[in-house]
Amino acid sequence: MEGVEDALARVMADPRREEANRTALERITSAEAELVRIAPASELLGLKPGEFLHSGPPLTWERASGPMRGALIGAMIFEGLAATPEEAEEKLAGPDISLAPCHSRGAVGPMAGVISPSMWVFELRDPVHGTTSCCSLNEGLGKVLRYGAFNEEVQTRLAWMRDVLGPVLAEAVESHGPVDVKAYLPQMLQMGDEGHNRNRSATLMFLRDLLPHIVRQDRPADDIAEVCRFVGANDHFALNLVMPACKLAMAAAKDIPGSSVVVTMARNGTDFGIQLAGTGDEWFTAPANTPEGLFLGSYGPEDANPDIGDSAITETAGMGGFVMAAAPAIVRLVGGDVAFALTTTRTMYEITLGEHPTLQIPVLDFRGAPIAIDAVAVARTGVLPQINTGMAGKVAGTGQVGAGLVTPPAQVFVDALKALAERA
Amino acid sequence: MEGVEDALARVMADPRREEANRTALERITSAEAELVRIAPASELLGLKPGEFLHSGPPLTWERASGPMRGALIGAMIFEGLAATPEEAEEKLAGPDISLAPCHSRGAVGPMAGVISPSMWVFELRDPVHGTTSCCSLNEGLGKVLRYGAFNEEVQTRLAWMRDVLGPVLAEAVESHGPVDVKAYLPQMLQMGDEGHNRNRSATLMFLRDLLPHIVRQDRPADDIAEVCRFVGANDHFALNLVMPACKLAMAAAKDIPGSSVVVTMARNGTDFGIQLAGTGDEWFTAPANTPEGLFLGSYGPEDANPDIGDSAITETAGMGGFVMAAAPAIVRLVGGDVAFALTTTRTMYEITLGEHPTLQIPVLDFRGAPIAIDAVAVARTGVLPQINTGMAGKVAGTGQVGAGLVTPPAQVFVDALKALAERA
Repeated sequence: MEGVEDALARVMADPRREEANRTALERITSAEAELVRIAPASELLGLKPGEFLHSGPPLTWERASGPMRGALIGAMIFEGLAATPEEAEEKLAGPDISLAPCHSRGAVGPMAGVISPSMWVFELRDPVHGTTSCCSLNEGLGKVLRYGAFNEEVQTRLAWMRDVLGPVLAEAVESHGPVDVKAYLPQMLQMGDEGHNRNRSATLMFLRDLLPHIVRQDRPADDIAEVCRFVGANDHFALNLVMPACKLAMAAAKDIPGSSVVVTMARNGTDFGIQLAGTGDEWFTAPANTPEGLFLGSYGPEDANPDIGDSAITETAGMGGFVMAAAPAIVRLVGGDVAFALTTTRTMYEITLGEHPTLQIPVLDFRGAPIAIDAVAVARTGVLPQINTGMAGKVAGTGQVGAGLVTPPAQVFVDALKALAERA
Repeated sequence: MEGVEDALARVMADPRREEANRTALERITSAEAELVRIAPASELLGLKPGEFLHSGPPLTWERASGPMRGALIGAMIFEGLAATPEEAEEKLAGPDISLAPCHSRGAVGPMAGVISPSMWVFELRDPVHGTTSCCSLNEGLGKVLRYGAFNEEVQTRLAWMRDVLGPVLAEAVESHGPVDVKAYLPQMLQMGDEGHNRNRSATLMFLRDLLPHIVRQDRPADDIAEVCRFVGANDHFALNLVMPACKLAMAAAKDIPGSSVVVTMARNGTDFGIQLAGTGDEWFTAPANTPEGLFLGSYGPEDANPDIGDSAITETAGMGGFVMAAAPAIVRLVGGDVAFALTTTRTMYEITLGEHPTLQIPVLDFRGAPIAIDAVAVARTGVLPQINTGMAGKVAGTGQVGAGLVTPPAQVFVDALKALAERA
């Protein structure tokens, strides 16, 4: 990578670095993740009317891409702050609406990642490091808010999720007690899921675990049956549990002076941003790349929006593209072939500090997943983190157009290392 | 293999063989498998009081091994035909009890495979070839009848399965309509299950699919919750669906004159038996080998009974040991290492006629599973089919002692080819 030599030399000469990175690795791998509560974002994230969270680094309405605008429009309508898309757009461009990254509240959201006060969210807790992370509930595929759709179908589903799904799951979790989400992750790797675009096994395990606590609820049988059907029919439902579990792992490594470990990779559809353990809350951003992969129906490359979503927290925490070897069937969704999946995982060891003690990849003789991306290693090798991702249509309201493969812009690592060098 | 040369030459010279084997392969791969009914064996298999089905080739009480005796004793008590194990043994040795292989009724049963009239069974149908196959409901692990345990705990569970589990699932299937079990199989191979000793994903998919039809039933919430908990807590529950699905595939290839395809591999704890497509209902048997593998708790090799169960129907139909490459985590259960799992699948292509069009193994670039064991190829290569299996304690009443790897005795292929040669 160009222009990084001086910074790299200074970072590598920092006597704190080795110990700092060792601490980061230890914290990341020791973090736990328990689902403890499900409630509206107003309650768990303190969101006020007119406040919206979104994926990726900070963003203004003016710079927002189509799917991000679509999701914000949809959330405005859902919150009753606008009656029409036009009214929503006008208000979103005005001074009374506030936008902030999910990550700024320790939260994460897939794709547009828009969270508004009335949406119910999962709250996961890491009892080891005392942190929490929230994530929205997954809407399924097709016309969904997170891909930028905002029509009647989206609104009806969001209302049902608020009125039925959220309360039913919340009561089930309360009855069950904390759900050990971290324990799902190694099992997922034994069951062909990489946790970013394949979450089938975790979805089914989560449903299985809550079931006895769902079916005993004193509610209409139709509501109970629909909750079971909705969760079971959405292979991605557990993505929104895996993401905050990954966020908790990475949050554990925040604010370690001298550490070159990447603790956040996130995209808002316009910019790709990263954060390092050694540089606090500072974002290093550059224009997001556009994924390449496989398209739904008649959509093609010209329909795809640049990379979007906080879901790259999975790769940041050693899941997703980093463990493609454990999920070879993923290539039928995101493109590439099985050899690519195996090679990708093997290559990720070149830019990570360690192998995860419990996230093991069976087909690689149970080798631990490549964990803790070292920005120094990225800069020295030129190997970029591999991300599997969904692709949103670039026109607001479209929804999903495909799934594919993408990498961060190299510049973010250059800028991050320069900032780290200044603190060395 | 010794003593088989003449028979082999005659079988290979049979002008019908090539076309017969092509027909067998086509029938096996085109068979469907739908779960259509769940009801007592008295109804679906016409079992009368005192009639018991068991796994493997035909067997008398005198020659029955410990776990088979244990299971039969348990079934006698369950049916109210004996009050004590001693009374059961006495009657089982007498003239009023009749034993027959599950396979003789187109049924299959794991381990001891004992089915008695009051036990509820799955009925699967192959609409393409117009056949049906039944299998018992899976009891879970630990002290269970199929591993030869018969104590109070076993009896209580069997009674609950008869009074609650069976009726609840039966009503759910009736409400749902036919459940496409064949459709689970390719998904299992994408989710790390080989369908013999790993059935986690199919169990969860089955539970997911029936759920909306379970939760709407007008029954006590505790019963509904317990059914959900019981099925979800037993990773092997779907074995008893995969087995009859495999049986239907192989039943489709029965009675094809001249075909050297193996349509049955089954063990009764004493003998290992096979049947060929070209030799009708004739069994070719030899003493069963004893599996080698990993043991539970303080059990060791001296506790293991010889190979037992109809579950080798999975390998016969290209699942189980034949697709270990798709389920590398299985080696932590049955022994061996990941390289062994990959090599085993590759080796099984040497003794099979084709590659299954829909059962694809992702990690082998979606190559179809090795399907349709050719007894000629077994004899010519000396490669024996690889079976993954549970291990029963050899003393009646013990239960499971481990899981491991086993092959058929070579002699059964020699004898089968001799019989086929006589018909050439």
